[in-house]
Amino acid sequence: MKIVLAPDSFKGSLTSAQASEAMAKAIYSVDFSIETIIKPMADGGEGTLESLLKATKGKRVSFTCRGPLGDDSESSFVEIENDGVVIEGANISGLPMVPREKRNPDLTTTYGIGEAILYALDKGNKEFVIGLGGSSTNDGGFGMLQALGMKAFDANGKPVGSFGKDIFQVDALDLTSVDPRLQDVTIKVACDVDNPLTGERGASHVYGPQKGATPDQIAAYDEALGKYGRLIEQACGRQFADEEGAGAAGGLGFAFLAIGAELHSGAKLVSDAIGLADAIQQADLVITGEGQSDVQTLYGKAPGYVAKLAETFDKPVILLSGSLDGDLREMNEMFSGCFSIVPGPKTLAECMAEGEVYLYEACRQLTHLLIRLKKE
Amino acid sequence: MKIVLAPDSFKGSLTSAQASEAMAKAIYSVDFSIETIIKPMADGGEGTLESLLKATKGKRVSFTCRGPLGDDSESSFVEIENDGVVIEGANISGLPMVPREKRNPDLTTTYGIGEAILYALDKGNKEFVIGLGGSSTNDGGFGMLQALGMKAFDANGKPVGSFGKDIFQVDALDLTSVDPRLQDVTIKVACDVDNPLTGERGASHVYGPQKGATPDQIAAYDEALGKYGRLIEQACGRQFADEEGAGAAGGLGFAFLAIGAELHSGAKLVSDAIGLADAIQQADLVITGEGQSDVQTLYGKAPGYVAKLAETFDKPVILLSGSLDGDLREMNEMFSGCFSIVPGPKTLAECMAEGEVYLYEACRQLTHLLIRLKKE
Repeated sequence: MKIVLAPDSFKGSLTSAQASEAMAKAIYSVDFSIETIIKPMADGGEGTLESLLKATKGKRVSFTCRGPLGDDSESSFVEIENDGVVIEGANISGLPMVPREKRNPDLTTTYGIGEAILYALDKGNKEFVIGLGGSSTNDGGFGMLQALGMKAFDANGKPVGSFGKDIFQVDALDLTSVDPRLQDVTIKVACDVDNPLTGERGASHVYGPQKGATPDQIAAYDEALGKYGRLIEQACGRQFADEEGAGAAGGLGFAFLAIGAELHSGAKLVSDAIGLADAIQQADLVITGEGQSDVQTLYGKAPGYVAKLAETFDKPVILLSGSLDGDLREMNEMFSGCFSIVPGPKTLAECMAEGEVYLYEACRQLTHLLIRLKKE
Repeated sequence: MKIVLAPDSFKGSLTSAQASEAMAKAIYSVDFSIETIIKPMADGGEGTLESLLKATKGKRVSFTCRGPLGDDSESSFVEIENDGVVIEGANISGLPMVPREKRNPDLTTTYGIGEAILYALDKGNKEFVIGLGGSSTNDGGFGMLQALGMKAFDANGKPVGSFGKDIFQVDALDLTSVDPRLQDVTIKVACDVDNPLTGERGASHVYGPQKGATPDQIAAYDEALGKYGRLIEQACGRQFADEEGAGAAGGLGFAFLAIGAELHSGAKLVSDAIGLADAIQQADLVITGEGQSDVQTLYGKAPGYVAKLAETFDKPVILLSGSLDGDLREMNEMFSGCFSIVPGPKTLAECMAEGEVYLYEACRQLTHLLIRLKKE
């Protein structure tokens, strides 16, 4: 029997790599002869790098770039085969990297993401996978584009800075000096939101508050990103501020569209990068998992994507979850079975602390049952 | 596919009848074509009557007898086929029937149990199954034997009462007037403890405290039951105060031995009464369950007995539990898989209140998985 283990992370408790290892150990503890194929999943957000590192036997490369607040910061990306590189935005300008009291879109920048791309280009990488999500910024990718070579000027023709607040000064942009190597690479951006750059459903209104933007700032950013967006579109000679995902990661999605990137479902990108479909095709069974599940799991989340792939190849797929909420009927259209790993009345803190033990035991029980049923 | 549903109760949340109904509904909701055989289990304690009523299509018979404190009390037993009757001690002189502040072995009696037996004899019953457990008494079955006709006298030859405290006055016993019909019936007593009547491991020392006995009372009862036991043994012409189970239910086990009863595992007795073995033999799968599980589940508890039967007929058996504790490796020697029904971080109160919903959903998921795996 061959089982693919493709969990997402159990947020706050286990990375997807840890989760898949715990599952594998559980299965071996019951039956050594079962072959497990470890494919930790991610949805393009936090954990994507680690998942790919594990699943592709990639190489982690460290470098220094500007952090979300502009100071030098250690970061890393992962190089995978065929000149591929995976960059995680959350790793460079992520919200968790900014202390709560400093969270203010005026003071943050995506500049470091541009530096990371340059560094990867220097190393000869051609295929980019970029994880958005979890960003601290609302700069419309203004910082990133400047790092990549774009020039920005105020009404007096003087260069402006690269933080969120500087976008209010922008009067003209010059994209001709953007690194020409970008024209010869493929950039796939993991993006699971469909928000446009501006407006009621735009980056500022929808995601501004969680990044510390005040109501006044939100209104001001929405206007400033509108103007900035039009300048970029003019320079590119096409319109894409209203495209789905342009508003992702504080408008960083828009900046990626400007440099020719394609936006994709994060789970699909990760799945493609780790060769999940091939693995599932060879397997008898798929086990996925995550920290918290409900019908949203089916839409864009990693386990939902795993289930979709399993369905494609007509393989049974089991979800092991830290918390199953709501009516599971819809879930059962995709999952062969959804099981909680929580062994009894437990607090959230206990579940977080004991996640590995709970997952291991739930997976052991499942394996035990599978083997017993196979004998029938 | 045929599935036997033989859960114990989920104590404080669901009776075994409710639990098996919830399981059956869950299975039907997934696949109408699965045949379920509902066999609610019990271990001879609380819930035994209801389990048998449900599983045997028995008839509940109401009557009035003395309650644990001696006042008239409504009670009932269940008549099953072939002149069988099931009497639950907890239903007549049970600890939950006595308000906490009145719990004192001096003031309680098993008299009502004797009355129930007489009433069943009057109705022509010949096969008795008696559930011990959960008793409020420490009278060594003194009350019951008096109800059945035994006479008890003090040192002055005056009749003594039938409460716990009266046992201290006993100087002579006359068993010749015990109802002669008892010689023509079979009495099987469900008993899952192995304590003798007296001594360190006797009824008073081990179970006295939970019935409100003070340390002084414990010592006094241990002595008084010793004397009482010798008088009974003399009258019967055999010794059985040290037999395993004589100390069950405050020494009620001893009194049953005196009238020729056999002590059995409660789970086995219930299982025999409901024809569980036959049902399992016909089934493809067995699902059992209970509120709280650990390795003790294997020893004398209903799900452990269900698992043993399933093993006998080489059928897979699944445990659905409100709480799985400790290392489950030993459990897996008997159970094909042990699954918690708790869907996420929940308090005990939530689990108790939502037990039916949780069990239903867990059983649905399991069924879904089974059906999917059957297709492989």
